[in-house]
Amino acid sequence: MMTAFIVMKKLCLLGATGSVGMNTIEVVRAYPDRFKIVAFSFYQNSQKGRALIELLKPKMVAVGTRTMALQLRSDYPAITFTYGVEGLSELAALEEVDTVVTAIMGSVGVVPTLTAIEAGKEIALANKETLVMAGELVMGLAKKKKVRIFPVDSEHSAIFQCLQGEDANKVSQLFITASGGSFRDYTRAELKNVTVTEALRHPNWSMGKKITIDSATMMNKGLEVIEAQWLFNVNYDNIKVVLHRESIVHSMVQFVDGTVKAQMGASDMREPIQYALGYPERMPIKNPKPFDLSAIGQLNFEKMDFKRFPLLQLAFETGKMGGTAPTAMNAANEVAVAAFLQEKISFLKIEELVSQAVYHEKTIKNPNLQTLLAVDEETRKRVSSWI
Amino acid sequence: MMTAFIVMKKLCLLGATGSVGMNTIEVVRAYPDRFKIVAFSFYQNSQKGRALIELLKPKMVAVGTRTMALQLRSDYPAITFTYGVEGLSELAALEEVDTVVTAIMGSVGVVPTLTAIEAGKEIALANKETLVMAGELVMGLAKKKKVRIFPVDSEHSAIFQCLQGEDANKVSQLFITASGGSFRDYTRAELKNVTVTEALRHPNWSMGKKITIDSATMMNKGLEVIEAQWLFNVNYDNIKVVLHRESIVHSMVQFVDGTVKAQMGASDMREPIQYALGYPERMPIKNPKPFDLSAIGQLNFEKMDFKRFPLLQLAFETGKMGGTAPTAMNAANEVAVAAFLQEKISFLKIEELVSQAVYHEKTIKNPNLQTLLAVDEETRKRVSSWI
Repeated sequence: MMTAFIVMKKLCLLGATGSVGMNTIEVVRAYPDRFKIVAFSFYQNSQKGRALIELLKPKMVAVGTRTMALQLRSDYPAITFTYGVEGLSELAALEEVDTVVTAIMGSVGVVPTLTAIEAGKEIALANKETLVMAGELVMGLAKKKKVRIFPVDSEHSAIFQCLQGEDANKVSQLFITASGGSFRDYTRAELKNVTVTEALRHPNWSMGKKITIDSATMMNKGLEVIEAQWLFNVNYDNIKVVLHRESIVHSMVQFVDGTVKAQMGASDMREPIQYALGYPERMPIKNPKPFDLSAIGQLNFEKMDFKRFPLLQLAFETGKMGGTAPTAMNAANEVAVAAFLQEKISFLKIEELVSQAVYHEKTIKNPNLQTLLAVDEETRKRVSSWI
Repeated sequence: MMTAFIVMKKLCLLGATGSVGMNTIEVVRAYPDRFKIVAFSFYQNSQKGRALIELLKPKMVAVGTRTMALQLRSDYPAITFTYGVEGLSELAALEEVDTVVTAIMGSVGVVPTLTAIEAGKEIALANKETLVMAGELVMGLAKKKKVRIFPVDSEHSAIFQCLQGEDANKVSQLFITASGGSFRDYTRAELKNVTVTEALRHPNWSMGKKITIDSATMMNKGLEVIEAQWLFNVNYDNIKVVLHRESIVHSMVQFVDGTVKAQMGASDMREPIQYALGYPERMPIKNPKPFDLSAIGQLNFEKMDFKRFPLLQLAFETGKMGGTAPTAMNAANEVAVAAFLQEKISFLKIEELVSQAVYHEKTIKNPNLQTLLAVDEETRKRVSSWI
């Protein structure tokens, strides 16, 4: 009898209760002989977090606050609880962990990701702010430590899949597709009075709140462009964003011979997550969403309008500036989006605050982690003071 | 100084004056340090053939008839001329040849292709009738001789490209796209009185006459389905044909995880030819046709209507029958299309003759070459007698 040789991959999942986190758990539960979550973090959703503790029986859990950690420690004495950014880093460096899934949202992902790479852990990267904020540092350290970074974002996973079996030096262009977000058919004038509820209605994907707002401002696509530049080492001039309403083509790569490869699929986050975790093996998705191109019928592609979406333009400019400029852009955006979600500012004010923050001060080249964290913090304070 | 290590590939081009042949010559001339045509064949286009002899200065040339070979021998004494099917086989087995490009049309391609494989030559396969007529023999011999067969047809090249870096065992479906041909918007009733001139107006590709008629009857797609089954070892039930008017997506592969990879490009035959010859290296195409998805705007996909295109249905059935059934279908189709081009029969009569031929006699399983050639010849005689 032949026995398949299966390697069990032990995972640390940062951001378990979020949208990518929950999809990751579905993938893991579908393949219990392939994946095991030995540690995870959640921030403050205690009910969901406790359910996951009982479901996954992890060795270690990191939470948002010391109070919550203490409470959980007394309720689950067999499990180690930790908290804060230090807690995330401790989790990410845990000895038995093979792969860290960074499904956590925002710039808080940077330090634990660096810690994981330093500890030699493979990264399944879903936290796009990490590369936007600290691309040079992260990619440099990953290279030094020979750590592979697998993209989880559907766009970057698509590009990564299209590059399999290809020579990366023969890429001429990347085409990143954008659905256009909740307001793709609104004029600039019509954007003035949009509400948070309207902004959270994404046409194709069910995702977290912050990324849904970022999709509406096109900042999300801007962050993805910067992320793509780091992951695939392609010049900004050779990264194109294409408006593609159906979100069926997740992204494309063009090669020097003119050939374009595209990766398509249903809007199902489990696909890129499972590919990142199981790479290079493809495995069936349990209860797949149906995918039938002739039922879909039509795929539309339009030029991206930079005047309609100035934050996308800003992201390209910021990416080209390099240094601390993307760090400042990202920090300003996080503060502005949070303020919009709390109904403290209007939708269009997000753009204004982010642009203002980027052009507020001189970019520092080749920043180290301390500088990046300082710029992140200062920018947050500054933008908060403008609100 | 670093010197690039370039291997010059010596080619034998069967069918030099046809559409694939001329495009192959363009590719070769764009990379004179990579490719050299040392031998080629043409059938009867003496003017074009002589121009190519002077341009390419080959070592050996095969032509259609003894008379033409004798004439050319006296005009170009430094070159060896040969003729007929034996001539093609002699050419294909020439010692200095690395790769044989089978750009020749029809079932006459089978014997020289088998000879080339027997002689250990790599095949760039543009003659789809070879695998339709003798798929089992050809693939068996290629496996035995460890000879690689690179597809040149844009559809099969697309699938081959999508499979790079992938595990062929993880393919769930192939989607072969079809433009629909010259009469895609005609009803069956409207097909009754169509002319040869109308049939030769293909909406997207400029190709030879026979393949253009085959596109209009959808026999071409049927032949491609059978060819794909042999090249990629995928069951007929997992090969789908999708009507795609724009011919931008050249074909697609779906994997067990639901992911679909597509290869796209301009309708430029040089792309798949160059990929087959340069594999695995991608090289720039000289003066590329522009390709801009947002300018194209829209890609349409429709279910294929088997009632509208009964020859496609027949090809699937014939493929599943196996043995000599596809041989008979192909032979009948070649005769019927030739008769239509000579205005001896109507367009719809092609379908009738081909179906009649397939169901005329019992299929012989596991045929050897003699049996295949005999069925080919008998079918041709039989169908001719029906005209």
